[in-house]
Parts: sequence; structure tokens; C-alpha cells
Amino acid sequence: MPTVTFLPHERSAEVEQGTTLIRAALDAGVHINASCGGNGVCGKCRVRLEQGEVSGGISEKLSQEDVDQGYRLACLAEVQSDLTVRVPVESEVDASVLMATPRKTAHIKQLDLEDFKEKGVFIPAVEQLNVQLTPPSSQDNAPDMTRLINHLKLKHDEHRLVVDLPAIRKIVNVLREQDFNVTVTMARPVREGSKTAIINVHPGDTADQNYSIAMDIGTTTVYGQLLDLNTGQVLAENGDFNAQMSYGEDVINRIVHAEKGNGLEELNKAVLKTINSINDKLVKKAGIDPDCISTITIAGNTTMTQLLLKINPRYIRRSPYVPACTLFPPFKASELGIELGPHVQALVYPAVSSYVGGDIVAGVMGSLMYREEEITLYIDVGTNAEIVIGNKDWMACAACSAGPAFEGGGMKFGMRADKGAIEDFSLDPVTLEPMVLTVGQKKPRGICGSGLITAIAVMFEMGVIDNRGKFNPEVDSTRIRENDGIMEYVLAWAEETDIGRDVTLQEPDVDNLIRAKGAIYSGCMTLLNEIGLSINDLDRIMIAGGFGSYIDLEKAMTIGLLPEMDADKITFVGNGSMMGAKMSSLNNHIRRDVVEVTTKMTNFELSETTSYMDNYMASLFLPHTELENFPRLNERLRKRRELAKGGD
Amino acid sequence: MPTVTFLPHERSAEVEQGTTLIRAALDAGVHINASCGGNGVCGKCRVRLEQGEVSGGISEKLSQEDVDQGYRLACLAEVQSDLTVRVPVESEVDASVLMATPRKTAHIKQLDLEDFKEKGVFIPAVEQLNVQLTPPSSQDNAPDMTRLINHLKLKHDEHRLVVDLPAIRKIVNVLREQDFNVTVTMARPVREGSKTAIINVHPGDTADQNYSIAMDIGTTTVYGQLLDLNTGQVLAENGDFNAQMSYGEDVINRIVHAEKGNGLEELNKAVLKTINSINDKLVKKAGIDPDCISTITIAGNTTMTQLLLKINPRYIRRSPYVPACTLFPPFKASELGIELGPHVQALVYPAVSSYVGGDIVAGVMGSLMYREEEITLYIDVGTNAEIVIGNKDWMACAACSAGPAFEGGGMKFGMRADKGAIEDFSLDPVTLEPMVLTVGQKKPRGICGSGLITAIAVMFEMGVIDNRGKFNPEVDSTRIRENDGIMEYVLAWAEETDIGRDVTLQEPDVDNLIRAKGAIYSGCMTLLNEIGLSINDLDRIMIAGGFGSYIDLEKAMTIGLLPEMDADKITFVGNGSMMGAKMSSLNNHIRRDVVEVTTKMTNFELSETTSYMDNYMASLFLPHTELENFPRLNERLRKRRELAKGGD
Repeated sequence: MPTVTFLPHERSAEVEQGTTLIRAALDAGVHINASCGGNGVCGKCRVRLEQGEVSGGISEKLSQEDVDQGYRLACLAEVQSDLTVRVPVESEVDASVLMATPRKTAHIKQLDLEDFKEKGVFIPAVEQLNVQLTPPSSQDNAPDMTRLINHLKLKHDEHRLVVDLPAIRKIVNVLREQDFNVTVTMARPVREGSKTAIINVHPGDTADQNYSIAMDIGTTTVYGQLLDLNTGQVLAENGDFNAQMSYGEDVINRIVHAEKGNGLEELNKAVLKTINSINDKLVKKAGIDPDCISTITIAGNTTMTQLLLKINPRYIRRSPYVPACTLFPPFKASELGIELGPHVQALVYPAVSSYVGGDIVAGVMGSLMYREEEITLYIDVGTNAEIVIGNKDWMACAACSAGPAFEGGGMKFGMRADKGAIEDFSLDPVTLEPMVLTVGQKKPRGICGSGLITAIAVMFEMGVIDNRGKFNPEVDSTRIRENDGIMEYVLAWAEETDIGRDVTLQEPDVDNLIRAKGAIYSGCMTLLNEIGLSINDLDRIMIAGGFGSYIDLEKAMTIGLLPEMDADKITFVGNGSMMGAKMSSLNNHIRRDVVEVTTKMTNFELSETTSYMDNYMASLFLPHTELENFPRLNERLRKRRELAKGGD
Repeated sequence: MPTVTFLPHERSAEVEQGTTLIRAALDAGVHINASCGGNGVCGKCRVRLEQGEVSGGISEKLSQEDVDQGYRLACLAEVQSDLTVRVPVESEVDASVLMATPRKTAHIKQLDLEDFKEKGVFIPAVEQLNVQLTPPSSQDNAPDMTRLINHLKLKHDEHRLVVDLPAIRKIVNVLREQDFNVTVTMARPVREGSKTAIINVHPGDTADQNYSIAMDIGTTTVYGQLLDLNTGQVLAENGDFNAQMSYGEDVINRIVHAEKGNGLEELNKAVLKTINSINDKLVKKAGIDPDCISTITIAGNTTMTQLLLKINPRYIRRSPYVPACTLFPPFKASELGIELGPHVQALVYPAVSSYVGGDIVAGVMGSLMYREEEITLYIDVGTNAEIVIGNKDWMACAACSAGPAFEGGGMKFGMRADKGAIEDFSLDPVTLEPMVLTVGQKKPRGICGSGLITAIAVMFEMGVIDNRGKFNPEVDSTRIRENDGIMEYVLAWAEETDIGRDVTLQEPDVDNLIRAKGAIYSGCMTLLNEIGLSINDLDRIMIAGGFGSYIDLEKAMTIGLLPEMDADKITFVGNGSMMGAKMSSLNNHIRRDVVEVTTKMTNFELSETTSYMDNYMASLFLPHTELENFPRLNERLRKRRELAKGGD
């Protein structure tokens, strides 16, 4: 990977070829003014190329003379080789201080298929086998199915077989289509000694066509992957908004809707519509025969799971928060209304409680933390944050309501990580001018969760806001102003935005985030405390959820969302639910393990835990009342205070 | 029971109070002229009451003087006490000969519930249990289903429980309807150690409402019984023609139809329509909550079973006669299209082969012959006759095509045993005037199978037809005539019938019956021969099928339909298929036993057995070429010949 070195800071970052210079600057911890979200409109992000090669970066905002001198727009220039780039700075201070730490992102954990195969846990729930049967005669007129079963017994040592209606219905024609050459689909049992089910038959040899779908049913988004069960490869992926969104954005509103007249049926139909549409797209994308799909493995939170199964979710939102059922038998996809073949099995992840659902259990399984000695803190951050702490011997879990702040909710200009959402941010320490990067490099329309974390962390470290989240009245910038009695910082001026209005970050927004991160942090602390551990006992943290993998961990620690620890102990698992769903397609033993793991997970209802509120109150500061738990930040703040004194 | 003595014959019969005198006469082996089917129209059946009391029997056909003298119409007079009745006879011969043997009917075998209970085999497949759960609290917010399962484990020693979707869907509301008092429906596994499924839940205590439906799906008729699983009692019964009848009368025509375009779907829908309509009627008749029905147990022949399961039956009718599948897993009634609750299990009887189907296996199970030491010949007589020979250690079976003669098919005036069908018959040995009894005591419209057997047996013994089934040209009666070159006997004159035409029995009809009985008898002989046994090795015969239980066994032996043996060794089981379906509702172990029994049943394809055709040819006589196997008949014929000589 090319190395980009920024002058005068003398900070470097290794980045992928094709990365924009502005993104490389962020990675290196270097600020470049930029207001337009990174699409070349504002022209503020001029940098001078001193060595190496970039592509693009030339714009009408630059004169021919500028270009000849090596000036480029950092947001448009893409790294092609090792580079040295000079960033224009307002003062020497700029070069030495800001963004004291280069960006530290978590490494990304993914299912390692090869590792799976090595460990012998690549055991799809469904197998296919091609066999050539002897055709019937008057000496041997055994029933078709008996003929198949006897052959499997004698020639393939397959015993304890049962048959399934769809296979019985097909066998007469299928056997005779290719002269009694047939491929049989066998669904393996979870437990040894239990029965293998013959669920499908195909004429001829189709053993190389054995597929499953893994699906994550999120409150907001549903994701599916079509998997090749012979290789474990993902053949197609697709995601879409959960059509239930029109009945309410979060689980509570969904439950409220489910309690009305036909609400449960409506919600059930809505999610089925989404699922079926995704399945259609997966099949089309991959160009496979849908009859060769044999299983769908599904993970979702407790409410999503109950709505999918058409189970009244009423008591999930009412104390004492009782779900209907948390361990599910294998279903027929068809009995759930999932429009796949009549033979398709639907395996639904079990839940632990009303707020620690199948999505979290899936993450625990997919992350393999349940198999390891190390003590892991697994946290899935969304509107609700779910926390699991444990290892192969024990596990504790809890959920807390973070509110929608991390998803851009409840804020004046908050938005999901859609195009135009400010997702990254830095601040010039002298001018307090921002560097704004948006999703899709569009003109800013608002700010999303990761942008918010970074923005607030930077403002806090720069002293723009104090540890209570209030704007420092001594700071002098045209971007900080009072608006209808509310203090705010202008992230982007109206003329630079896509919405024709100033996009701002207001004190109530900061307050919102502090409460959200406070809920999560105090959740972790309370849970650790309940099980008699401290942060230091954690061997690693795994973060799941909608956060981008590029989120700056140091920033997340700066605001006190995560406990301060080595970045290399932090792993980003992305969509843990999806990972777990995929895992149970590829490893049938997971269905046995998951019952054990789920049973082992001790659920703590934080609302019933007296210390939770104390911990929460103590967390409503940046980063926390107990600054001693954040030594690195503490040291940076100290240095900054010194520098500020020196600069006076 | 009152005894009725007939003079001058001095023959008696014990009959139920309320029996008509004409029926009593038949039972005693006494002929009374009667042409109108027994509804008082012809007035020929005048008898004189010499002692005792009858009700009815007075008609405009009798003058007041007749009545005063004790004359009654035998068809209308009902026995009220011990009686002496004088029958007017034409000659002394009448009194001494005709109907040499009093009627011998088979005793009727029925499921003996008390015996079941005593033997510990009254074990319904589904049980209900009422439990009072502790409501959830913040200290115990286990999921609803977990709460129920834990209670069942701790308080009722119920382990290895699985849950079923319909129960999961209901539990949330059901638990809270009667303050966590709930009745749980548990479907028991077949094998010990396998899992019990929680398939339904009801609020409060409904443990006294636990029902199942047993159903026999016949080619012609579908029968259902609604059973109380707490007592084993039949709460309602209903039967109806199989709506598939409009697509063909027999299995072959059904298969032919199934092979056309949409035929299979049409046939499947037709039988489902009949089943669902019967179920509706059962529920209404019994006045029960249909949600408390938990299982439906189903028996039918192989074609009926495949059509119910929507499986292509094409190869059932083509050599080498291969069915699709003969052992079936438990189904959901709903997946078969049976409109009962979503939790209802459908248990379908396994078959042995294409022509020894689930109806026969059900009969074998229901008759309990599979548990006993005695060697039983079980025979189900219909268009196809299925024969099973064996005991608790071994079993052999075969099917032969008898044609529709026993169901009144293929004959000029043949009909099913509907109203107006001549079902019983005797002949005055001198005048050759008949005694005709019809179903429902209506004017004759035709003759059904049992009437035919009796009529031909009587005519044969009286010498009216010979052992090849030809009318004896020497017999003198206006009732015997040639019609369009075909010899026939007039059973009823036009003016006595319901159809305004003479109802006759023709030589081709006799021929038809001889071929039908020949097929069955030779089937039995061939099967016995294949397994190295003879008739003398049989301990008993069990007859299932549409034959009425009142069929005269001696007559059936006279025509060579049954081998000659003691009448008390012959049991009539009626609808064996229905009996077996009922049995598997009441005795869950049957599902384990039936797999064993079915596997044990060695199927012989008679069409592939060379000796079958020889046996068949030898059977095309009355009773058979080997008259030595019919010693009682032989003796009667000898006596008759002597008498005839004496009478000359």
C-alpha cells in the first residue's frame, strides 16, 4: 500500500491505492479545511503535491498555474503511489497539535472459511449426494422412496433416514427423468443419532448445486446472502429497508402497532415482503435454480423474530419484559410465509431475553467468542445497545436503550449514513474551520452517528465544548453562535449544503449523544460490576452494528463510548447478526452449540439493577466523571492545556 | 331375545325384539314368498300367528277375518315375544327341505375399549394437561414458553419437550387469559426417548376436551369418526361419497385421470373437499370446539393415499406396480390441505405395495391379528380383494382384482347396497317363487352383492343353476326365461318394482360373480400355497369390506367365495380401514408397531405367480372343481339328489 506523508505535520498513513487524499489525511490525523463533503465544490481542500503521483484532483477551482505548481483538491485527488503532500496551514500550531493521534480503526473480523474447513466445522446443515439406482423390475418392485433409502443405506452407510412430503411428492417423476440417476438432498440432524431428513430430490447429478440463504432481519434493514454450501462462498448479497419501517422506526413503535387491530398481521406481511423480495434478487443475481436452495438461516432481535413468526410482541415492551419463546424448532420456510421451495428449512436464531435477541446470539456465535478462553466484551451498538461479556465457560448479557443518536435520530440535522451525511470530521485548532467528509462525497445534508462521535470528540479535545457538552463561551469563531437561545456550531454553511440551510450541531445534539454513550458505557460497567470484573479483565472488545469499520476508536474512547484500551484489542465484526446467520448455514453444529450458549447466557435487566442509574449519572460527562479510567485522553488534555498556556 | 318358531318346518331363530318376521324366517332358514322387498305391497308374505305377540303386520291386503284369525304380513309384523308362526306352504316338500341350514352369520369384531384399557394400550397419541403457572415478575421474567416447559419439567416430570409454531403463536395471549392457568396439548412420540411436542395451549382447564378424528378414505366412500381421547368414545360419525367419484369409479380410472393435465390436483382437491366437509359435520354433530381436535388418523388404499398426499400415482397401475412411498412421516394436517387447526397432526397409515395399501394395514392392526399366535386369513372384499395371512411372527399378503360384482357392478340390475337393492333372497323349492328383501324395505330396484351371493347360492343348491352357472333347462318356472338369447330369472316382476321393469338375474351376471369369487378364492389358495400352508392351517378368517355383517357364511362357502370352515371361526370386522384408523388414534404404540408389521408383510404379486392362473381357472365353478374341499355342501347336494329321486 502506498504511504502518504503530509507536510508540514510529518504525519504519514498507509492507504489503499485510489484513496482520496482527504481520506488519507484523516487516517494520518491531519486536518485539511473542507466544507462541501468532499465533492470538489468548495475548493477549500487545496494541497500541493511535492512527490509522487495522484490521479484527478484538478478542478475549475484551481488555475492552470496552481495545477502546474502541483496544487490539487485533496477531495478529488486519488493516491497512485507513495506521496509527499504539503497542506497549507494557518499557523505553526496547526502543524504540531491537532489530531494528536492518527486514526486507529478496529481490524475487521470476518468468518474465515479456510479456518472453518481446517477446524472441521465447515458442515453445512444440508448435503447433496448423487446416486444411480437400479430401476424397478417385477422381481424388485419396491416403492420409489424405499429404493432410494435402501440404496443410501447399503452404498452410503446412511441410516436413520426420514422423508419429507415435498421429496415424496417429487420422487416419482424425478427418478424416471434421468433413468433412476438422482441427486438427493439430506438435511442433517443437530444431534448425532437423530434422523437425517430427505428433503428434496433432483433428476441427474446436481450435487454441485447446493445453496442456502443467510438472513439478518434488522429493525431498519434486512440483509441476505446467498451461499454456496459446497464452497462456503457468497454468491450474491442484497439488502433493503425493512418494509415494517412504515409502521414505526423502532421496535417499540412496531410493538405499539402490533397491538392495534390487524397490526401484527400487517407487520408480519411487511417483513415477509422484504424477505421475499430480497430472496428473489439473490436468486436472480446469482443465476441459480431456486429449487436448489435448501435452508434459510435467520437472525434478528427478539421483536423482529416474534413479528416474523407472527407472535404477539406485546409483553416485550412491558415490565417485566417477557418474550413469548426464545428457543425455536426448525421451521418449514413455507409455514412462515417465506416463498422458497416447500422443502426449505428455516432455522431461526434463539434469543436470550426480550432485549438480547437472536441477532446478538448470532453475533456471539459468529464471532466465535463462545469457543475461546479470552474474555470478550461484545457490544452491538444501535438504538438499543446489547452487551455480552464472557468466554467459553460463562456469559452475561444486558441491553440498554441508547436512543437513536448513533443512527442520527433525535438531532436537528441527524440522519442515517445515507448520501450527504457527514460521516467524518476534523477541526482546525486555530481557525476552528472544519474538514467535512460525507457519505458518497455529496454536498452535506446532515450528520450521521460516526460523524457525530468524531465531531464531538474533536470539539471536546479542542476545548470547543466542555466535559458537560456545553460550548465554551470563550471560544471565538463565526461558526459558533446562538440560535433561538440554543448554542450551535455550523458544520456547513447553507451555500455549501444540499439543503440550502446551514447544517449545524447543537448543544441538545451533544447532550443526546452524551446520554447515548452514557447508557452504553454504564451498561458495560454495570454488567462488569455485576459479574465481579473490571475493564482490565477484558481481553478484547468486539463491536458490532451499524458503525462503519473506519470509526476512529480513539475518538470513541475520547467521548467515553468505549473504555480506553489498546486499539488492537478491539475488533469490528460489522453485522454480527448476518455473520451468525451465515455461520449456521455453514456449520450445522452451531444449532447444537447455540442452545447451550443461549442457555448459558445470564441476562441482567439493567432497569432492575440498582447500580445502573448511578453508573449512568456518572457517565453523563465527556468522557466520564472518572477521568482516571481514560489515561491517554487525560495526558492529551494535559498537553493541550500546557500548549494553550504556552500559546497565550 | 325372543325365539320365533316357524311351522310346519319346526325351525327356530333367536332374534332381537322388533325384528320383522320375514327377517326372522331368513335367520331360521325358512322361506316365505315375498316379492316387494318387504314393504307390505305384494301381500304375499301372509303368515299366521299361533302363539305370542307381534306389533304391526296388519294391512289392507288382509281382510278383517284374516286378521282375526291371526294372519299377518311377515314383512310388517315385528316380534315382541316368543312366537309360534305358521307359514303357508305349497307342499310337504317345502317344509322338509329348503334352506337346509339356518343362517350362519359371522360374529362382529369391534375394538374393545375396555380390553384396550386393561391391556394398557389405550394410549392416545395426544394428551392434555392443565397446569397453573406462577406469573412472571421482575425476579423471574423467563419467556412464556420457557415458563411452561420448566413447570412441566419440575412438576410433571416431562422432559425432552419441543414446541410447535401454532403453540408458540398462541401462548402469549393464552397464558394471560386465565391468569397463567393453562391446558397444554402434548403430542407423544412414537419411540421412547424421542421428544414430546407441545402443539397447542388453551386458557384455563380444557383437559376434558381432547379429540381426534379417525378417517377411512375409500375409493367410493369416505368415513370419519370423531373420538374423545379421554374416554375412547365415538362422539360423532359421518360418511360421504368420495367426491373423486365424478372422475372415475375405481382406482384405475382415478389414476388415468391423474395422468391428465391437472388431473392430480383435481383429484386431490376432490378428496380434500369430502374430508373437510365430513370433518365439519363431525364437529357440528358432536358440538365440540374444533381447536381441541389434535390429530387425524387416516387409512386408505395406496392410490387414495397418494392422491391425498398429491403424489403422482401413474406407476401404481403399470407393471411392475411401483408406489411412490409406503412409510409416511407424521404430517401437519394443514400441509395436506386438511382444514383443521394449524397444530393438528395427520398420521397416515403405511402401505405394503401398490395394491395392499394402508387400508389393509389398518385392518391388520385394528383386528389385532398381528399380535396373536393364531394364523388368520384376513380378507377385504371389494373391487379389489386384498388377502393377508399370518400371525404375530410372519405375514404374507396379496391383492387380486375381483371386479365390481360384489359392489353390484357389471350386472344388468346390479347396484350398490342402497335403498331398494335386493340384499336377501330365498327360493321356494317347489314353486321357485322368491322371497326378496331389500335395503330399507323399499320396492326392488336391483340387486346388491350380498343379495347376489345368496341368490346364486340358493339357485345352485336348488339345482336352478348348475356348477358352471348355467340355468338348468329342465327347471320349470315362469320366472326362468330367455330374453334376447340370454337366460334369466325374474327376481321381481315389473309391477312389484320401483322401476316399472322386471328385475332379473342373468347368466352373464352369474358368470361375473363366479369370476369375482374365483379371483378371490384362487388368490387365497395361491397365497397359502406360496407360503406352504393349506386351508386347514388357518385358525380363523376375518372378513372386512362392504359386505353386510348379516351375510350368510354358508352361502358364501356354497358359491366357493370362502373356503368351507366352521362359521364360528369367521369374524366380520366391517370397515377394517376405519377400525385401524381409530386404533391409531387410541393407541399411540400402533405407530411403532405398524412400521414393524408393514416391514414384515411379504407382498406377493399374483400376476407374477404362475400358479395363480391355474388356481383361478379351477375356481370358475360353483363352488370349485375340487368339491372335496367343500364336504358340507357336498353332503347337502347328495341329500338333495336323493330327495329329488324320491320325489320323482
